[in-house]
Amino acid sequence: MLRIAVLGAGRIGRIHSTNVAAHPNAKLIAIADPVAAAVDPLAEALGAEAMNDPIAAIDRDDVDAIVIGTPSDNHADLLLHAVAKGKAVMCEKPIDAGMERSQAVVDDVKAKGGKVMMAFNRRFETSFAAIRKAIEAGEIGEVRQVIISSRDPGLPPEDYVKSSGGIFRDMTIHDLDMARFMLGEEPVEVSATASRIVDEALTAKYDDYDTVMVTLKTASGKQCHINNCREAVYGYDQRVEVFGATGMLQHDNLRPTTVRRWTADITEAQEPLLNFFLQRYAQAYASELDAFITALVEGKPLPTSVEDGLKALALAEAAIESVRTGQTVRL
Amino acid sequence: MLRIAVLGAGRIGRIHSTNVAAHPNAKLIAIADPVAAAVDPLAEALGAEAMNDPIAAIDRDDVDAIVIGTPSDNHADLLLHAVAKGKAVMCEKPIDAGMERSQAVVDDVKAKGGKVMMAFNRRFETSFAAIRKAIEAGEIGEVRQVIISSRDPGLPPEDYVKSSGGIFRDMTIHDLDMARFMLGEEPVEVSATASRIVDEALTAKYDDYDTVMVTLKTASGKQCHINNCREAVYGYDQRVEVFGATGMLQHDNLRPTTVRRWTADITEAQEPLLNFFLQRYAQAYASELDAFITALVEGKPLPTSVEDGLKALALAEAAIESVRTGQTVRL
Amino acid sequence: MLRIAVLGAGRIGRIHSTNVAAHPNAKLIAIADPVAAAVDPLAEALGAEAMNDPIAAIDRDDVDAIVIGTPSDNHADLLLHAVAKGKAVMCEKPIDAGMERSQAVVDDVKAKGGKVMMAFNRRFETSFAAIRKAIEAGEIGEVRQVIISSRDPGLPPEDYVKSSGGIFRDMTIHDLDMARFMLGEEPVEVSATASRIVDEALTAKYDDYDTVMVTLKTASGKQCHINNCREAVYGYDQRVEVFGATGMLQHDNLRPTTVRRWTADITEAQEPLLNFFLQRYAQAYASELDAFITALVEGKPLPTSVEDGLKALALAEAAIESVRTGQTVRL
Amino acid sequence: MLRIAVLGAGRIGRIHSTNVAAHPNAKLIAIADPVAAAVDPLAEALGAEAMNDPIAAIDRDDVDAIVIGTPSDNHADLLLHAVAKGKAVMCEKPIDAGMERSQAVVDDVKAKGGKVMMAFNRRFETSFAAIRKAIEAGEIGEVRQVIISSRDPGLPPEDYVKSSGGIFRDMTIHDLDMARFMLGEEPVEVSATASRIVDEALTAKYDDYDTVMVTLKTASGKQCHINNCREAVYGYDQRVEVFGATGMLQHDNLRPTTVRRWTADITEAQEPLLNFFLQRYAQAYASELDAFITALVEGKPLPTSVEDGLKALALAEAAIESVRTGQTVRL
Repeated sequence: MLRIAVLGAGRIGRIHSTNVAAHPNAKLIAIADPVAAAVDPLAEALGAEAMNDPIAAIDRDDVDAIVIGTPSDNHADLLLHAVAKGKAVMCEKPIDAGMERSQAVVDDVKAKGGKVMMAFNRRFETSFAAIRKAIEAGEIGEVRQVIISSRDPGLPPEDYVKSSGGIFRDMTIHDLDMARFMLGEEPVEVSATASRIVDEALTAKYDDYDTVMVTLKTASGKQCHINNCREAVYGYDQRVEVFGATGMLQHDNLRPTTVRRWTADITEAQEPLLNFFLQRYAQAYASELDAFITALVEGKPLPTSVEDGLKALALAEAAIESVRTGQTVRL
Repeated sequence: MLRIAVLGAGRIGRIHSTNVAAHPNAKLIAIADPVAAAVDPLAEALGAEAMNDPIAAIDRDDVDAIVIGTPSDNHADLLLHAVAKGKAVMCEKPIDAGMERSQAVVDDVKAKGGKVMMAFNRRFETSFAAIRKAIEAGEIGEVRQVIISSRDPGLPPEDYVKSSGGIFRDMTIHDLDMARFMLGEEPVEVSATASRIVDEALTAKYDDYDTVMVTLKTASGKQCHINNCREAVYGYDQRVEVFGATGMLQHDNLRPTTVRRWTADITEAQEPLLNFFLQRYAQAYASELDAFITALVEGKPLPTSVEDGLKALALAEAAIESVRTGQTVRL
Repeated sequence: MLRIAVLGAGRIGRIHSTNVAAHPNAKLIAIADPVAAAVDPLAEALGAEAMNDPIAAIDRDDVDAIVIGTPSDNHADLLLHAVAKGKAVMCEKPIDAGMERSQAVVDDVKAKGGKVMMAFNRRFETSFAAIRKAIEAGEIGEVRQVIISSRDPGLPPEDYVKSSGGIFRDMTIHDLDMARFMLGEEPVEVSATASRIVDEALTAKYDDYDTVMVTLKTASGKQCHINNCREAVYGYDQRVEVFGATGMLQHDNLRPTTVRRWTADITEAQEPLLNFFLQRYAQAYASELDAFITALVEGKPLPTSVEDGLKALALAEAAIESVRTGQTVRL
Repeated sequence: MLRIAVLGAGRIGRIHSTNVAAHPNAKLIAIADPVAAAVDPLAEALGAEAMNDPIAAIDRDDVDAIVIGTPSDNHADLLLHAVAKGKAVMCEKPIDAGMERSQAVVDDVKAKGGKVMMAFNRRFETSFAAIRKAIEAGEIGEVRQVIISSRDPGLPPEDYVKSSGGIFRDMTIHDLDMARFMLGEEPVEVSATASRIVDEALTAKYDDYDTVMVTLKTASGKQCHINNCREAVYGYDQRVEVFGATGMLQHDNLRPTTVRRWTADITEAQEPLLNFFLQRYAQAYASELDAFITALVEGKPLPTSVEDGLKALALAEAAIESVRTGQTVRL
């Protein structure tokens, strides 16, 4: 039974806490968040101790592992503290908003032999995982092209845009990790283009974009295209197509039901997509946590690493540079 | 080069005439129809001779084969005359509205060794034909259940209803032939139910129905369900599912394009179905004629026979009796 | 907080117990099953009391409601005992294998004003429920035809066939309830046909069938077709199509993932269907229990009744009689 | 009745000749090709005059319009000669392999007021045309992103690769025209990446590529992604997705039938795609010719122009430059 403390009682901390509490091989010891109004009822409902100091939660002797779901600017400090204390860590993206600090964290974790898993939840979504497994099983031969379509249902609030670090660092980064996951080989070239066409005033104000495309190429010539938009009226659009030498694999979106409607105007119409990531990836969050717990319980390697977090960020930075310079960035 | 005369210059005669004229191994010699206003422009456009007397067209020495597309009550007479003159015949359904006369025609054709193909055009539609071929190739093992959905886009005009012989004889009969085609074994039991729910006043006036279901069973236990309705707002609905011991085959409808629409309300919506049989089965009419011509040119057996026409009619009569008596009719 | 005892610790009792334990407005007090080896670990894992006598569980003062998931021949006795004790009941199908006893139970429950919900779980499956809701909202106008395809992934073991009461009473009965749910009007005519084509030796031995079709008609002329087969190689096939005056609604199957495969031989291939009802209806079981608990907590009518159980059984009996006599049975 | 001469009796000349001969408002006067063995039987079968000199065919007084389907290096000369003679022209792509000559042709046609339509057949394919029409009707609001997937079924023969001008000029060019058609606004930025992963030896030998991606951006920020590969084992893959402010439109591939297969391993599997462009675009070739003839007969503007040919080529050249320099090319 792995004893876990969850740091953060916001939207994502709530999901992780609930999943820890429901896991047969884990025990939720504590949830730590400075906001008592958030952490107290959550901890009570799940039978865990409510704390306000995340450092104190890490330091507890009755805690084996830490799940970090705090605001991004705390990730690096908490992660390093937990590693220093010998605790296993599952940490939400990103390690840190900056490359330099992220690299330092990776180096430190490596030096200390820390057990850290970055929470790239999409890798654990049933269909994405099945596609990766099919690729590894050779079902489609050598991968040639990966096409990732990823569009949010609507613009985030201005507060979010202000501090997000920009679309490449907060949205595209998930698709860049997916690209690495599906390509099975590191991208060495990145080019990107970016537009302000959903809300020009808002995005220009923060020197951000709302609609982007990225192209990646690996050393052996495998290619990946990513398209992103901050707003898709039909819901949260998350598709992947992997085209290989002997076949192709496609991942489709999820809807609330399987119902198809026929009228005088349309046939086979399905519903809009599940609206956003909490619904869309509910299974993925649970499976991700299960992978973390199971790896630790069975003494096996964690499925993702801080290096994965660093590499996704490096690709995002390269995309930003490509937009700025109009040049393909070579890594 | 097979020399052909087409009898009838109405909707169906026009299709057959055009297909004969375009066929590389056939020559359209004449089109015969008592209505000069119909036959004259058609014949001129296709470079054939316009005639008003179908008997005279059959009797021509420069005609090898006859395509009968006249009103139904002339089918039997023209068919027998053509057989008597030694001409090959492709005849539209039905042989005749009555079982007795139909049986007599079948007997006569058999006695004279006539070459007659009943125009069950759906058997030649690409997808239906591919399903039959796959069944014969053993792709799904022994057939267990056949599900046929067949709904017209809208009620026919009252004049048609008045003289059609009823929904079982004019609409279900096509599906009964499809059932025989897919089952690969003769039905020996028929039960049916019938309702007046699209237009009760109209159908009751002519002692007819607008919405029916039929169940068939063969001696070995294979089953078939047919559902019909005179009106489907989304278009002309023609689907078949064949479920077997080792697999299943499904046939889908056709639409004008492959476009799928996504909006805030729907995803993957396709267009309404092609509206009616002339569009839906355009390819099937051409392939049917090609099968007729090719069989004659190559001296091979015709793909359907007058017996097929008789058997479909016998099943329709059994369905009518089942509705009347509330009993399963055994053939 | 509704205090619940679950009777039965077998496959279905386990599902209900787990769902009760996870429900925010319910408390799982006890699980009762004569087989200690089944009930003890389940009760321990869920933090409930393990009991061996279901009557004693019903009699507990700290229990408000009973969920019956025992073998079918105990349903009636336990249900009546619970009603006599004033406990609300959610009972698995059937009330009883026989019509007479079932009718007596319905009468008794009615006389005592018992709160009993029959566990027709499929009505609570998201997509089926959405279709019913769309019908009620008038999305497709008056219902004309309902097509229900329902095929099991494989033959049940001989022991099950021996005591199941036959395919109509143990398998078709679920589809007969679905037919009532979708038609929104009671069937008044039933006809059926039945075959032994999956395993003739086995089914003949127990005077049973493995492949059947049923046709229902309501007083206003609405029609319903049901097809069943004990074995479908591609998985547990559960589809419903509801065709109405102004549109059509279709329900599709579920698969483990949304992945589509393309190779040199096929395109857009999906996986086989979820194998059987425990996986396929996992969500439906939880939603069904939630509907039970929520109705009781909020003092609203239960969504299904013992009458629903009786009526589905009456339709199954009528189908059996129709197969025996070759006649349409009028109710 | 428009009197037409077709230049070229190869694969594409044969299609155009057959379509002209079948068109109700056109008369096929002559087919010209230096290879008598190609032109003689084709002309005879279609009732046209066989000629060996295309210039002589253009010069005929009984010819109003010219369809050019000769090898690419003759296009410019024949086109200009026809324009000089006052004949309307439908010309296969490209105008010429080089930008300079192409520009000169465009200038000359403009100066002479020539009526020239470039044969961008895909614009006339039913579904692509319906998507364009829906965009123009405002169905999806402002276009934001266009995703074009376009993969050939297999590598062309070495002879073709040798003289094709490279994948961007002979394959991507069709998608670049489709991009312009769907974007409804000229691209002003082009970036591209290219790999040799299907047959490195072959493509390196001719300094060509077999797998490419292109990104386009218009002045207002609309984006387009194109992916190409010379080999897709599942058939000729031609898809377009247009994502807009209020909706999305998708175009799907065509297969020989609508049959879906279910077995123990797969469900809903469709057939491989139609193998190549002659089958895939049969309807598009006929509709394109119809658009040409109808515009001339009705005195309306031709639907495409030599400028369209020049612009698609300019985009291809920009893509090539982008691959060479690793920079986004601004037009």
